[in-house]
Amino acid sequence: MNIAVAQSGGPTCAINASLMGVFRHAVKYDEIKTVYGSVNGIEGLIKDHIVDLKNIIKTDEDVELIRQTPSTLLGSCRYKLPDFEKDESVYKSITHTLKRHNIGAFFYIGGNDSMDTVDKLHRYFTKENIDIKVIGIPKTIDNDLPYTDHTPGFGSAAKYVATTIQEITRDSSVYSIPSVTIVEIMGRDTGWLTAATAVLRANGEVSPHLIYLPENKFSVRRFIDDVREAQNKHYAVIVAVSEGVSPDPEEVGGDFQSGYVDNFGHKYLAGVAKALSKIVAKEIGCKVRAIELNVMQRCSSHISSKRDITEAERIGGAAVKVALDGYSGVTMVFKRVSNHPYIIRIEHVETSLVANKVKYFPLEWINENGHDVTQDAIDYCLPLIQGEQNLQVRNGLPIQFVLKERL
Amino acid sequence: MNIAVAQSGGPTCAINASLMGVFRHAVKYDEIKTVYGSVNGIEGLIKDHIVDLKNIIKTDEDVELIRQTPSTLLGSCRYKLPDFEKDESVYKSITHTLKRHNIGAFFYIGGNDSMDTVDKLHRYFTKENIDIKVIGIPKTIDNDLPYTDHTPGFGSAAKYVATTIQEITRDSSVYSIPSVTIVEIMGRDTGWLTAATAVLRANGEVSPHLIYLPENKFSVRRFIDDVREAQNKHYAVIVAVSEGVSPDPEEVGGDFQSGYVDNFGHKYLAGVAKALSKIVAKEIGCKVRAIELNVMQRCSSHISSKRDITEAERIGGAAVKVALDGYSGVTMVFKRVSNHPYIIRIEHVETSLVANKVKYFPLEWINENGHDVTQDAIDYCLPLIQGEQNLQVRNGLPIQFVLKERL
Repeated sequence: MNIAVAQSGGPTCAINASLMGVFRHAVKYDEIKTVYGSVNGIEGLIKDHIVDLKNIIKTDEDVELIRQTPSTLLGSCRYKLPDFEKDESVYKSITHTLKRHNIGAFFYIGGNDSMDTVDKLHRYFTKENIDIKVIGIPKTIDNDLPYTDHTPGFGSAAKYVATTIQEITRDSSVYSIPSVTIVEIMGRDTGWLTAATAVLRANGEVSPHLIYLPENKFSVRRFIDDVREAQNKHYAVIVAVSEGVSPDPEEVGGDFQSGYVDNFGHKYLAGVAKALSKIVAKEIGCKVRAIELNVMQRCSSHISSKRDITEAERIGGAAVKVALDGYSGVTMVFKRVSNHPYIIRIEHVETSLVANKVKYFPLEWINENGHDVTQDAIDYCLPLIQGEQNLQVRNGLPIQFVLKERL
Repeated sequence: MNIAVAQSGGPTCAINASLMGVFRHAVKYDEIKTVYGSVNGIEGLIKDHIVDLKNIIKTDEDVELIRQTPSTLLGSCRYKLPDFEKDESVYKSITHTLKRHNIGAFFYIGGNDSMDTVDKLHRYFTKENIDIKVIGIPKTIDNDLPYTDHTPGFGSAAKYVATTIQEITRDSSVYSIPSVTIVEIMGRDTGWLTAATAVLRANGEVSPHLIYLPENKFSVRRFIDDVREAQNKHYAVIVAVSEGVSPDPEEVGGDFQSGYVDNFGHKYLAGVAKALSKIVAKEIGCKVRAIELNVMQRCSSHISSKRDITEAERIGGAAVKVALDGYSGVTMVFKRVSNHPYIIRIEHVETSLVANKVKYFPLEWINENGHDVTQDAIDYCLPLIQGEQNLQVRNGLPIQFVLKERL
């Protein structure tokens, strides 16, 4: 039989490593003949737009370069499958593509939304008695997938945001005047990535002085008090704020939503740091700067976590074995056995448990005042950012694997 | 005798390396007893706030960590000296501090504005027959200092912006819909750093597809045409735009200036990428994203250019010799002897030639259509980003040198 793999959702530094995991593990099994890549996630299966991965990945050097290339080699999508009870046509197209190419297992690397696709496809195949396995491989910098200790992509993003906050802290401390720097970090619904900036404490860094997560109620009035209190101790105050933090519109005299809603119904947020910086300027009147870490936090492969990349490849590889063992409708997960030493086990759970669910940052890991995280959060994050990739460089620039033509 | 050194202007990745150059070179000379650091640039001399550097930098490991720590160890300032003909009091304070501590030479590491300070101090000492040498050591990510081939700090910033544009290019290419990503890069008056993104071509990267510098007249109408043309070839168009690019306010229906003016009369710019993205959204209607590289482009030491850091230290060291040779009122400069092999010579020029002057990006290095740079620009920038720092890391994070107490 053949297998197919696709990547979905927002880019990360580790999603190509999971692709390599599937590919490199699959070629070891005699029963798997061809590993297909579906272009632009599930859209590739709908449109019968698939490629034989061995025509793209030809050498060990290719594998190495793909591992250090961020974003999705095979493209991505934000396509939401309709319920098959209502609209079966898309499912028929997918089934047609899979059967036509004798594909017996489909691996979908993605986040919460992609697991919705895995779950629906699995249920459809079950109903139709179609023997095609569907396996979910987790990926998201947001780290908000339930039943897994963490998600591939998170560790590298965490390493980037912490490293960058440290550098911003040095940068902001040069002048002899008080200042507030507000750094906005990704996290639609959850504060995992923002919380990860606290790992800097392990190296004695005090910054960020204030950390705000969307899991906690946010009051602008308390925020201003927090900043004033922090200014008593630090003349250059650094604030890490999750993009998902949403102040009461009445308190800020406006709405933080950009008004844009995606195919999964998620509202897109815009500019919480900018909005808060205006409030600080008005209420406190000191120098203030808003910084958005923007897409750099999900694609800065040059500072990725080696452990993250390694684990992403391992969990991709493990998924192949799970499919060959006959499982379907399952999502691969990490179980943390211990922190010291850091030991992780790869398992799998029913995708229906994971799909469309969100794993929030534990409220008990937020401090009493709601403006910092606890040592438990640091202990949790720290192992995930360990290790530096041995980057291949040419002309002073990291080499990336780029397809000569669009797929 | 003793000497003093200070850092001024905006932070860079290399300014601490130049400080190390002065310090490590000075301790080799028997005639120099103490190397003082002036806290917050020239303000430290005015207020007699100076520190003995050997009380701060105690071990070789300290030196190594300071070298990989961005921003200014001794703080910075944006203080502009008054003309001594009009107001001599500040000069008297400075002279008092210098004489009190038996300081025979003062080294000022900074950009265009700091050279104004060097020039004025030198002229004052000459007029007053005070034998204190004043030497300027260049520093600015903007690379806009005349008479030097390039400025320390530029190479590291260039390496960061190019590396990041490459990653953003991968990130922006995942979806199957057309998009435009506009990346705003620092450069108040000059486009050197924005132009440096073109070094990616050396590795076969086509992006950035459009490059706009402030040296060239900018037309919003032509910009939209350029984007449309680029979209015929690339479905994810990447635009690198200098913050100093200022469209005709009549064309954009508003002003790009933030309204803030600093002590040197420089206007602060704000949000050209944001403004252009709104125009693209309105005129073309595709997915569009504005990214500000913000302070990260001047403080991302984790991806600094080894050549930049090495040269910064060398030029700092060379300044000590120049002072001991009896020169004053001079600024250290690089002269490029050749590109292949890359050979640089360290010389010095009269600071009066450099102070308050701007070295613009050559118009002949901008292509005819005004939306790209030529191979000459790439050949110029490429040697400056070479080499990777061997970063010292603890807990998965670059170690930085942080003073236990505020100076």
